[in-house]
Amino acid sequence: MRQAFHEQLDAIFQDLAGMCGDVEEAVRLATAALLTGDSSLAEKVISSDAAIDHEREQIEDSAFMLLSLQQPVASDLRTVVAALRMVSDLERMGDLSVHVAKIARLRVPNLAVPEPMRPTVARMAEVAEEMCRRTASVITDRDVDGARELALADEEMDGLRRATFAEMLSADWEHGVEAAIDVALLGRYYERIADHAVSVANRIVFVVTGETPYAVEV
Amino acid sequence: MRQAFHEQLDAIFQDLAGMCGDVEEAVRLATAALLTGDSSLAEKVISSDAAIDHEREQIEDSAFMLLSLQQPVASDLRTVVAALRMVSDLERMGDLSVHVAKIARLRVPNLAVPEPMRPTVARMAEVAEEMCRRTASVITDRDVDGARELALADEEMDGLRRATFAEMLSADWEHGVEAAIDVALLGRYYERIADHAVSVANRIVFVVTGETPYAVEV
Repeated sequence: MRQAFHEQLDAIFQDLAGMCGDVEEAVRLATAALLTGDSSLAEKVISSDAAIDHEREQIEDSAFMLLSLQQPVASDLRTVVAALRMVSDLERMGDLSVHVAKIARLRVPNLAVPEPMRPTVARMAEVAEEMCRRTASVITDRDVDGARELALADEEMDGLRRATFAEMLSADWEHGVEAAIDVALLGRYYERIADHAVSVANRIVFVVTGETPYAVEV
Repeated sequence: MRQAFHEQLDAIFQDLAGMCGDVEEAVRLATAALLTGDSSLAEKVISSDAAIDHEREQIEDSAFMLLSLQQPVASDLRTVVAALRMVSDLERMGDLSVHVAKIARLRVPNLAVPEPMRPTVARMAEVAEEMCRRTASVITDRDVDGARELALADEEMDGLRRATFAEMLSADWEHGVEAAIDVALLGRYYERIADHAVSVANRIVFVVTGETPYAVEV
């Protein structure tokens, strides 16, 4: 019984790690759409979100099955419930990638992000993708140290977002209100992707150590 | 056993409805801070968020206890898991009220929202508060029809947000980039509060009917 439980739980965690990979791809394509104005990439992210939602449904069904049939208690129960939360975080990360793609699509054939701001936005996207990648290995390896390192990447994200505000509010900003709104919302979306990655990683810390690192959802 | 289960479940649902009331108050105070520039109101929202987080912890603990001790299956299990999701939504609504309060605080002694935009933002806040209030009674009365009506309120919210964009992007906008960024982010926060309210209400529909109305988290 316990062995079956742990095998099924491992399968769920593998599926969660696989979902990280799909979210990372969504962030990558959405950002490519944003920085090249290629609407077909944006469409691909938007239409692929159904696949991420479907993964979520399958993982949820597996978790419910596990709860129903194995009736775990104590730390096993908490682990399954943590998996249900991780899958919600990952689905939201997919939704946020769709929001990025939609801003890209809205401005085609122009680019939403003004030229001087592109390196910062590109770096935000890189940090977000890197965080998805590391979250996958945190899940696969139950890597508590790796999870804690994600907090550092999240700090870089916050710093990048502050840099976008500083640039937009400087006297030199000559790209108007529309671009500022786009960049402010894009910054919010990348920041939230990073927050959710940290949240997933922290749930792994909780699963392994029984301790919650700190409140993550801000 | 079943009676004890249902009594404890009812207690959790009552606590969730109580949390809706606290979130509604947070939205109300954050908006008052925003539209009057009263920093003490903003501070109150920010410091009161710990109480909402504490409610979340208590409800989560009760739900885990129920899962561990009563080992529900089938629809009872799904109901407890739905309660765990609702509590996450409600906590996020509290966090989003804090975001509104922080924008208010950032601009004191000025007001973040330019004068001509205030009626629209005030209406967004009213819709959000009304949605919190109705979500509480949807939970208390397991009111499926009331839950479905929340979708209409959510449409009004989306329309108000579109109106803010139209105004900011019109040639008449003379309030600069900073105000536009503030209003764009505020609109996002109120819209997300509304989305989470719809999400909570839809989980009640699921608990009562076994059907998910439609995908809510966008």
